Amino acid sequence: MSIKRYEVGPRMSKIVVHNNTAYLCGVCVKGADIHEQTRNVLQEIERLLAEVGSDKTKILQAVIWLADINDFAAMNAIWDEWVPVDNAPARATGEVKLVTAEYKIEIIITAAI
Amino acid sequence: MSIKRYEVGPRMSKIVVHNNTAYLCGVCVKGADIHEQTRNVLQEIERLLAEVGSDKTKILQAVIWLADINDFAAMNAIWDEWVPVDNAPARATGEVKLVTAEYKIEIIITAAI
Amino acid sequence: MSIKRYEVGPRMSKIVVHNNTAYLCGVCVKGADIHEQTRNVLQEIERLLAEVGSDKTKILQAVIWLADINDFAAMNAIWDEWVPVDNAPARATGEVKLVTAEYKIEIIITAAI
Repeated sequence: MSIKRYEVGPRMSKIVVHNNTAYLCGVCVKGADIHEQTRNVLQEIERLLAEVGSDKTKILQAVIWLADINDFAAMNAIWDEWVPVDNAPARATGEVKLVTAEYKIEIIITAAI
Repeated sequence: MSIKRYEVGPRMSKIVVHNNTAYLCGVCVKGADIHEQTRNVLQEIERLLAEVGSDKTKILQAVIWLADINDFAAMNAIWDEWVPVDNAPARATGEVKLVTAEYKIEIIITAAI
Repeated sequence: MSIKRYEVGPRMSKIVVHNNTAYLCGVCVKGADIHEQTRNVLQEIERLLAEVGSDKTKILQAVIWLADINDFAAMNAIWDEWVPVDNAPARATGEVKLVTAEYKIEIIITAAI
């Protein structure tokens, strides 16, 4: 049973694949506000999924951390447009303070290959 | 390698199955207090697991978010009664503010089919 | 598809294995400060992985909860020394209040067998 790692650094890999399942790092991307950051995070997730031959129709689970839970509606406005029809993942969202104050959202994805 | 989704909405699916593993959405259910909400959440988890041919003896991992970590003992009182003997899952519990103030607990389950 | 559980208690199992994948409980260990607790948690993770025939080169994902996100740099100093070259897992870190105030860090590991 092989393990493949992608964009491997000394601290973390951006994606690890095992058993036809891809585990992505928590994705944060800078942006002016929650709308822009959510768009940027989802775009980065698409980029990472493409790298391992997956895509957004194959996401199994998304765990969403918001630095401020009051951004829930704004995040959902972007999320709902992005999620492919008939292929929404299981999802959980909670308020978690992130590694720097500039980040408003982090998403942790598990996807099928 | 097929993916099956259950109770699929535009935002999330309640369960996604891949590779003999079920990923459930984070489950919150209304209730008067932490005891009642914990009971309701665990009952809903049983309902979801049954839908995919799994049950509470096959839970692999439970991540529990409590809006107030002071509810830890009260949650455990219900949890400990509910967990099947010899089949307890791996578990982690932390304080995470939830999507609305009425929710006191959210549980994210991964289970075998 | 079998499920194997290790160090099974009435509340949780410390490890659950299914489909060549090990799900560990959230690991917290006492210690004087964030440096010592991080070292102790990583040592305990190695012990648990060894029990199921895995090791730190096979970690797929690590979710790190810090009680105080200001401990991020101190935690990373220990983490970066510990992670095996070319085998870093996918990782996400956020601030989550833990079950007792004495705990400063909890790590939730998914690993390949």
